[in-house]
Amino acid sequence: LTSHPEAIIVLPRHKIMKMSVLQEINPNVRNMKPLEYSILAGRLSQIKEELRQGVKKPYQEVLDVYMGDPHKGGVKPLSFVRQVLAACLYPQLVNSSKLPADVRQRAQRLLGRCDGGSVGSYTATRGIPETLIRVSEFITRRDGGVPSNPENIFLSPGSQWSLSILHVLLNPESSPRNGVLSPVPCHNTTTMSVTGLGAVVVPYYLSEEQGWELQVEELHRAMESAKGVCNPIALYIVNPGNPDGHVQSRKSMQEVIRFVSERKLFLLADEVYQDYVFGENSEFVSYKRVLSEMGPPLSDTVELASFHSASKGWMGECGLRTGYMELVNLDPAVMKHIFTMFSTDTCAPVLGQIALDLMLNPPQPGEPSYPLYHMETQNIKNTLAGNGKRAVEVVNSLPGLCCQPLEGGAFAFPKVYLPPSFIQKAKEAGLEPDTFYCSRLLDEAGLLVGPGTEYGQKEGTYHIRFCILTSAEIMEEVLTRLTCFHKQFMKDFS
Amino acid sequence: LTSHPEAIIVLPRHKIMKMSVLQEINPNVRNMKPLEYSILAGRLSQIKEELRQGVKKPYQEVLDVYMGDPHKGGVKPLSFVRQVLAACLYPQLVNSSKLPADVRQRAQRLLGRCDGGSVGSYTATRGIPETLIRVSEFITRRDGGVPSNPENIFLSPGSQWSLSILHVLLNPESSPRNGVLSPVPCHNTTTMSVTGLGAVVVPYYLSEEQGWELQVEELHRAMESAKGVCNPIALYIVNPGNPDGHVQSRKSMQEVIRFVSERKLFLLADEVYQDYVFGENSEFVSYKRVLSEMGPPLSDTVELASFHSASKGWMGECGLRTGYMELVNLDPAVMKHIFTMFSTDTCAPVLGQIALDLMLNPPQPGEPSYPLYHMETQNIKNTLAGNGKRAVEVVNSLPGLCCQPLEGGAFAFPKVYLPPSFIQKAKEAGLEPDTFYCSRLLDEAGLLVGPGTEYGQKEGTYHIRFCILTSAEIMEEVLTRLTCFHKQFMKDFS
Repeated sequence: LTSHPEAIIVLPRHKIMKMSVLQEINPNVRNMKPLEYSILAGRLSQIKEELRQGVKKPYQEVLDVYMGDPHKGGVKPLSFVRQVLAACLYPQLVNSSKLPADVRQRAQRLLGRCDGGSVGSYTATRGIPETLIRVSEFITRRDGGVPSNPENIFLSPGSQWSLSILHVLLNPESSPRNGVLSPVPCHNTTTMSVTGLGAVVVPYYLSEEQGWELQVEELHRAMESAKGVCNPIALYIVNPGNPDGHVQSRKSMQEVIRFVSERKLFLLADEVYQDYVFGENSEFVSYKRVLSEMGPPLSDTVELASFHSASKGWMGECGLRTGYMELVNLDPAVMKHIFTMFSTDTCAPVLGQIALDLMLNPPQPGEPSYPLYHMETQNIKNTLAGNGKRAVEVVNSLPGLCCQPLEGGAFAFPKVYLPPSFIQKAKEAGLEPDTFYCSRLLDEAGLLVGPGTEYGQKEGTYHIRFCILTSAEIMEEVLTRLTCFHKQFMKDFS
Repeated sequence: LTSHPEAIIVLPRHKIMKMSVLQEINPNVRNMKPLEYSILAGRLSQIKEELRQGVKKPYQEVLDVYMGDPHKGGVKPLSFVRQVLAACLYPQLVNSSKLPADVRQRAQRLLGRCDGGSVGSYTATRGIPETLIRVSEFITRRDGGVPSNPENIFLSPGSQWSLSILHVLLNPESSPRNGVLSPVPCHNTTTMSVTGLGAVVVPYYLSEEQGWELQVEELHRAMESAKGVCNPIALYIVNPGNPDGHVQSRKSMQEVIRFVSERKLFLLADEVYQDYVFGENSEFVSYKRVLSEMGPPLSDTVELASFHSASKGWMGECGLRTGYMELVNLDPAVMKHIFTMFSTDTCAPVLGQIALDLMLNPPQPGEPSYPLYHMETQNIKNTLAGNGKRAVEVVNSLPGLCCQPLEGGAFAFPKVYLPPSFIQKAKEAGLEPDTFYCSRLLDEAGLLVGPGTEYGQKEGTYHIRFCILTSAEIMEEVLTRLTCFHKQFMKDFS
């Protein structure tokens, strides 16, 4: 085979020959700020490689608590969930083994809902119909009887993916641009998604001094700040908070609902940490429930999307990549378009759909798997509460570190005081000061945590985020490494 | 709890109180044409319910060959794949069972690559690093030694999802709009995605009379047709063809490559059916390989994204929702933005990543699982080839139906002649004529196939699509039902 003769007359290669030069790509994507994580992940790989090659370091392995990833942090998967999933994948194995009777029955029932009796078949776009009913039943139980319509539920490859509902709501042609009110701090990917869709992120600041409370006056301020910049169409809330660990009160939620109603905003409620509430006086209440309790006209006009995920709950199956979204009070004509948009992706991962079904319908007292399931989940629950308490205690005992009380969620997000001389050094290194802090913590103590820059923070303040949903042993080791490093750090820079 | 006092003074509820009224949503999403499938799926549910309630029909269950979903069509999952996946999910089960040694070793090795030794942990954004290396090794082997860089590979929740690379390439602010050249016929979701991203679909017609060949003159015509309408930036190709079953020759691919180079188009090669080639003189060659063979300057300037999927291959694990994309010749600065965009979704489903690893690295001769694996895949291969031949034979024996020879892919896409009196009736029913045909086929024969309207066709022609990757028994039953129905149909309408 020879080259086409015409190829010879082509002039020397230039970048201009390519269509996807940087100047020409989607400017919204170009505006997406890359994760600080990329910087630290690069260093993490190097360190791992160095350790593998026998380079001596003060630690033998890196502890990585950057993400909310319980299994990575030593939390064990729930036996019941894994048994049913394995049985669904390979039914032959089950028949020859000693799995509990309810596991086998559950697997059989779930497989019966899959076309061709296989988890390898596609499902309906919104998910397996019976699973949608199970999800709606769970929501109704959780919300004390507030009805949930399975037709308003979409299973998706993760709650982050559910946010693509914004693709329907955000009009790229509107002028001024659409805006989305988003909390600061906030887990990073949402902000990125909003930017990528060409909308403007309008920050509202949670009040750190009040335990990261959401204050409605701040929402009003944020709306004012948007004037002349963009036209806000939605409010994004994370409750329980990520990274902040605050759990909203009913009163606060009522204020938010009145606010979105007055301002005609779509309410996006990220409620994926709803199981993780351990503050003594804290309780998770869903926005759907509070909205319903407030009665008409609010309860039948405020538009709401609520997200949950199989990555969270006690099973913490992040790798299965499945979540659900419930839509409330949407115009049926708009619902049709949402359905059409979701149908381009065929369906959510089927094993994830099944795991979600199991998560929302766990074994009941009297069933063979109940005792083990109960013990495992209680252990995780207690560990989380214990880790939360311990993390706050240790962090607050260190000079220059200060963590608000944790009420829920999977993270601690302490403020860290960085001395001017260190900030200067960070500038020289071309890094954000808290990213530089995290980078040194990683290098010197083998501990990977997230810098506040990643999640947003008031200018001039710095934070770190770390996952507390780990085993108790790993949490202890995390806190020990943080303590040693930070004490030395304070010596070096004061 | 009482309503907020202000709520009382709100005027009677109108749609205008909601933000997401139809007029205000993203016009690109509003332009997405809903699937014809929705119409037929509604009727399918009704029929299933009627059958459940004991309503008498000429069939006892519906055969659904609308989608390319092998397990639904009675193809059995591959034992090796399912054994390894089950072992990864529930390692305890494995130790106590009699799984082949290579299955256990494979599971152990794969779990060793997962953080915390669990498939429940997140992976790196692009996928498990070792799996990316396995994918690149597979590509290099497949392409006769053309090197593949693991850093250019992204694992994703399905090849359709990989198309979100268009989100990077399409500039929503460009005027005139960006365009994407897409084949007619073409599986429907791609067209929908392009529209949803605000770009214009520029159709190029495959030549049915030449066995659905892609003719480069037609690409030129399509480019001309775009003048004044949009600015085409990419060419989308499906090879082997879906729904048409054509397999491109090397010569045709060389022409396409020269065309995209001249026109500075990004080449999107959907190659998910690469294993499914059964035409006597047909062979799958990847665009990457042909591009490399053509040498510089083409081989280092033409930008290419190639897609593959765990839904296809012999294992047909559609439900796991994982595929990969390989990017070739992209500007490193653009690659960074693609990475950033993909990082908002964290990672592809982990069990899907593992399945992909298994698909591309199957058991080798001498390993305990090889004989069974070989037998199972050979069976599927032979069944597919047999079904393809049989489908063409039967369809072409029917008056008014005409199917081009099938060389590959998972579908037959015969042309169907619809008499004017029937077209009139379809109009009265408010349906596209071929959708109406499919709807009657479903009602009267319990057979669900896709209408040509869904995939695009020359005006005035009508087609149906059905999956041929089923068991031989189901294929026979599909063809029997189609034959009975169509003969009666021709009697009724001629």
